[in-house]
Parts: sequence; structure tokens; C-alpha cells
Amino acid sequence: MRACLTLEYFGPAFHGLQRQDRLLTVQGVLEAALYSLCGQALTVHAAGRTDAGVHALGQVVHVDLPRSYPPHVLRNGLNALMRPHPVAVLAATEVPPDFHARFSARSRHYRYVIINRPAPLTVEAGRAWHVPTALDVPAMQAAAQLLVGQHDFSSFRASSCQARSPVRTLERLDVVPEGEQVLVLASSRSFLHHQVRNMVGSLVQVGKGRWTPADIQNALAARRRCAGGQTAPAEGLYFVAVEYTEIV
Amino acid sequence: MRACLTLEYFGPAFHGLQRQDRLLTVQGVLEAALYSLCGQALTVHAAGRTDAGVHALGQVVHVDLPRSYPPHVLRNGLNALMRPHPVAVLAATEVPPDFHARFSARSRHYRYVIINRPAPLTVEAGRAWHVPTALDVPAMQAAAQLLVGQHDFSSFRASSCQARSPVRTLERLDVVPEGEQVLVLASSRSFLHHQVRNMVGSLVQVGKGRWTPADIQNALAARRRCAGGQTAPAEGLYFVAVEYTEIV
Repeated sequence: MRACLTLEYFGPAFHGLQRQDRLLTVQGVLEAALYSLCGQALTVHAAGRTDAGVHALGQVVHVDLPRSYPPHVLRNGLNALMRPHPVAVLAATEVPPDFHARFSARSRHYRYVIINRPAPLTVEAGRAWHVPTALDVPAMQAAAQLLVGQHDFSSFRASSCQARSPVRTLERLDVVPEGEQVLVLASSRSFLHHQVRNMVGSLVQVGKGRWTPADIQNALAARRRCAGGQTAPAEGLYFVAVEYTEIV
Repeated sequence: MRACLTLEYFGPAFHGLQRQDRLLTVQGVLEAALYSLCGQALTVHAAGRTDAGVHALGQVVHVDLPRSYPPHVLRNGLNALMRPHPVAVLAATEVPPDFHARFSARSRHYRYVIINRPAPLTVEAGRAWHVPTALDVPAMQAAAQLLVGQHDFSSFRASSCQARSPVRTLERLDVVPEGEQVLVLASSRSFLHHQVRNMVGSLVQVGKGRWTPADIQNALAARRRCAGGQTAPAEGLYFVAVEYTEIV
């Protein structure tokens, strides 16, 4: 049985998604629970790798199980086995054998949360980027629109990024004020490593008045990482959802 | 100068609001910062005591300072001195000498956050009450309306409550679904000790179908704590705001 699992996790508790020796990772915790449940070593495949500190509200993984389980048994069993780590299976479903969490994905949605106020964070500490100086949100939104579409995003990709091509098609990049929060909503079929955090770091330069929207255009055109802005902290980033061609 | 401070804090980090020897409390941290700032021991007066684990988004305190400070200096100075504890001064204002954070309050607003889903909490752990069984929200809302108004709330007050009268006038008690969250919004001029958490615990009994709304009515009429429901956990409760007769 090929199972598809929707995962939620609290980023700062893990050294990222991907399994690593001797480090607590989401994949490591999930695969240990699967081993306990099924009695054999299984490998999960995720829609997207998230870095250390990045949260997920709707990460998707698939895994091939040696037998069939009712979805709620899989969900509840894995959740019980993963305690007390802050990762949970929100939903489990059976999927066709040609479904692949990574390769079947049509669109990935991220949310970046900035809290824009003078006072430090308390309840939201570790869950957002605290920017104390007032941000010009309309300027950020105008700049963001210059990044939407198909571009070479070399200026916004981590130097360690292993993707073959730096070209991506950004479907959406919206900067939305919500009370004292400034949300950056990003959608794309796929993203380069650190792309959302690097775009957000650059947009905050615009919000602070240090860059104009035209500087974003120039940074994009430069196609060199050193032309882009700072990398926004991991703790503000949420991997919200993955869309697939067929409903799973 | 009498100063009014609006505070936000993350409840689980503190042994409640009120100063206690050898224990980390919100009042203790704030008064230590005031001592560093002003060079003398000062006592703050809060709009309401919150228990260990209860959060605040808009607690209000007043304090008499030996000299005058520009409000932003007070806010930023105290915030710097209170680091790294998760308590922040959101706003500081000068108020008239007859303003009292507790006695001038006209209305207090609380929010209780329930997350109603099978999967355990990850990102929201420590910030909400996890209720895994599906709740009947309309029944909870119907039951809540039976508590609105002036009543003897003995059935919903902590046995340790020191208030002289058990009579309170509940202005608002609404049960509002919001995605997988169920919010309980409570407003009153003042509340008894544990009143909100005890009302929420009883409403959850209704939501689970163990109590009918009529059982809430009977519990209220019994005027004995043992007739009320369980006390909902502290970590779901937020002290949201205080209203005063005159704008401060």
C-alpha cells in the first residue's frame, strides 16, 4: 500500500526534514515510528525538504507499506509513536502506486510571517520574524510583483542549491498586512533552496526604504546571489500546502 | 508620573502574574526591570491576576514612577531589561493619578483557544487546548448563552476564590468555530477565579454530547463548584484586553 501522509511540525525542534545521522529530524522521527508500526525499515519521500527551523502546516510525504492499514489507524498509530516530538500526521490516505509526493506536485504554497512592531515577541517567539522598524507594505507588494512569473532566480538561490536550473515560475508572491503581522504568500510549482527566505529578506529591504522596487528588479537581473538581499530567518517560514494534479 | 503599561506574555514561562519568592513571575520580572531603570523598588498593579500558564495579549498594569519618561523610552527600556523572558511592554502611556489598572477597568476580555482535531498539536503546542473528539459547536454556543447575564457563578469559581461575592455579570460568552479551532470569547466587568476555564470545561462537556445545554443551566442553579465541569487547561487561555471608562 502506498500511503500519502500530510504532516505538521514545529521547525525549531528539528534539524530540518531530511534524515541525518545522530540528529533529530522530521524524517528520522517519522521513519522510526514507521519501523515500530511495520517492523521494517521504510523510506519516506517528501514533497519538499525544509531547512532546520522551518515549520510545516501541510508537508506531504509518501511511503510504501508492506501491508494495508485503515487511514485512521495509520494516522493515530504514527502520532502515538512520534510522541513527544512536535510532528503530527494530520491525514493519511491510500494513493495509487504512481503517485509521488515530490514529482506529482503541481504547486507548493509557503507563508512567511513577519511581526512588525517595536516590542519583542513573546507568545509568537520562534514562530515569526520580528522586524521592529515600520515596514512600507505597499512598496513591498509592488516589488514582489516584479518577481512573479518565469525568471532566472540565481540572485535568490542558496549558493549550496543543487537544482540543475535556476529558472522557476513564481505563480504568486503577495505581501499582505494583517494586524501587526505582514504575511508573504508564495506559490510555485517548485522553489530553489532558500528562494522564499531570500525573496523575503530582499522585500524587507524595500519595506525599510533601503531598496526601491527597482532595486529588486536589478537584483533579479544580476543573476548573482550577492546581488540579492539577506536570507530571512527560518522561524518565520511555513510550508503550508502542496497541490497535486489528482486529488489525493 | 503614573504610567500605564500594556503587556503581552507567554504563560507557560511563568508561575503566573503575581510576585512570589524564588519563582519566576511576570510581576517579578517587570519589577526587577523597573528597579534597574529607576533605581528603586516599585510595585505594579495589574488589571487581573493570571494563573500559571495563562497567556496575555493585553494585560494592563499601572505603576508610579519617581520621575517622568517619554513613553517609548519606558517601553523600549523595560523590554531590553526584561530579556530574555517572554514578556513585552506593547505600549506605555502616562495616565492621571486617579487611574487604577484594576479598579478603573470597565470590561475584561478573554479568549480561550481549543484545537479540535484528532492529531496532536505541534506548532500550537502550549498555546491551545487539544480536544481530539469532534465538538458540537452549535450546542456549545446554545449552552453558553444560558450563562450570559447576571448570575451567582459559584458553580464555576475556584474553591480558592477570594472574591466577596460570587455574583458576576457576564456580558458575552460566544463559541466561535474558526477552521480547526473553536474559540470561546468571554467578556465581563470582572471574573471570578478560574471562571472562564471552568465555563469552558463545562461547555466542552456539552460539545462532546455528555451534557445538554440544560445541564449547564442546572449546574449554574446548583451554586456549588462540584456541580460545574472540569477546569480547562491554562495554556488555552488568553487575557486579551481591558477596557477603561476613559481612554488611556
